[in-house]
Amino acid sequence: MRPNEVKALVFDVFGTVVDWRSSVIREAQAFGARKGIERDWTAFAVDWRKAYRPAMNRVTSGELPWMNIDALHRMALLELLDRYDITGLSDAEIDDLNRAWHRLDPWPDAVPGLTRLKARYILATMSNGNIALMVNMARRACLPWDAVLGAEVAQAYKPERKAYETTARLLGLANEEVMLVAAHNPDLAAARGFGFRTAFVIRPTEHGPDQTINLTAEQDWDVVAADFRDLAAKLGC
Amino acid sequence: MRPNEVKALVFDVFGTVVDWRSSVIREAQAFGARKGIERDWTAFAVDWRKAYRPAMNRVTSGELPWMNIDALHRMALLELLDRYDITGLSDAEIDDLNRAWHRLDPWPDAVPGLTRLKARYILATMSNGNIALMVNMARRACLPWDAVLGAEVAQAYKPERKAYETTARLLGLANEEVMLVAAHNPDLAAARGFGFRTAFVIRPTEHGPDQTINLTAEQDWDVVAADFRDLAAKLGC
Repeated sequence: MRPNEVKALVFDVFGTVVDWRSSVIREAQAFGARKGIERDWTAFAVDWRKAYRPAMNRVTSGELPWMNIDALHRMALLELLDRYDITGLSDAEIDDLNRAWHRLDPWPDAVPGLTRLKARYILATMSNGNIALMVNMARRACLPWDAVLGAEVAQAYKPERKAYETTARLLGLANEEVMLVAAHNPDLAAARGFGFRTAFVIRPTEHGPDQTINLTAEQDWDVVAADFRDLAAKLGC
Repeated sequence: MRPNEVKALVFDVFGTVVDWRSSVIREAQAFGARKGIERDWTAFAVDWRKAYRPAMNRVTSGELPWMNIDALHRMALLELLDRYDITGLSDAEIDDLNRAWHRLDPWPDAVPGLTRLKARYILATMSNGNIALMVNMARRACLPWDAVLGAEVAQAYKPERKAYETTARLLGLANEEVMLVAAHNPDLAAARGFGFRTAFVIRPTEHGPDQTINLTAEQDWDVVAADFRDLAAKLGC
């Protein structure tokens, strides 16, 4: 890789930039405390996340019309509330709980790393999360994005080619001038297939203390980094 | 107006945030100096801008397929170079001159005003300029956008309804929760027609020392401000 050719870094967000699991557990626990409801909120958060990929697949297959992640999260939440026997919530309470995904905390190295990287590279989200979610998250967590792009702008979910290529095109760049930063080998494999550069950042506790996936680089990615500070150092920032 | 209802400020950019006229004159002069070409670069800049609205109208009418502003600026530039009898440029030289529009300087109050406004409001572009242009401009001028939205994301140019409504929807907001900030009465009239709040910022030299338009508020806009610092003060920031 010749890093000087890379003009923009685009980021997977859930898991790579923010710790969705701890944050959603915290949000669900706080909801339970407010409502006086006791459940296994860790299982609740994990089950909620499990609904994410199948829901996007239903959009990609055409079974569902285009729906953004807020809408897909809410659809999954309604099923989940039923399964966990949580009833009697107002629409406003459901909406607020659904926006837990707007209030995810960054990994501790994310903001300092991004701030260093921003001096040299255009930084954009390339998340399956929708724009409002990304904007609210960024404002709360001080994530210094130059642009919020990704699935909703492209009207296609990763790993569809359109999600990747639209992002590069809208930045006015060739695919090979864009590097995807992700904690997920499959995201990077798709990116490489479309000509993007690739940076793997290891997030060994994204899925909790017993994580078994994405602990090692499964290909010779252009960069492999322990965290965003290490990524900045390896990209000369 | 109850300003607490407004969640996001969306900005016209050319003329409202940045001084396109002085900046394009400067860029054209620098181009002329590099190439040893003498022309009336003020007239050149003004003529280039004059091609902007007719070009967008050709897209809106369907005469042209969707083309972003970089492409429309370039199409106009080729005609202009011919009209000013400037020949023998390489494609790279034409591209670089075309990117003059990525290098526009903010009005002196823009960055301090935006920085204050950002503490309370989501700030997004709602420009007819394309994403790459807005991103490059913002990085150069330190414009603290939360999101770069507008025509290219909506695939519609202002004053089409779709350009406005898509912007609000992508921010997860109702139209009345969004305030358009613009130096142009017609932009604001369209925004008000679609239920947006409106802030008029007077830019009395956008069109040079002899400007005759947009010197006064033509309707009772929700806010009328002398500049972005005044806008911040009037919105309680």
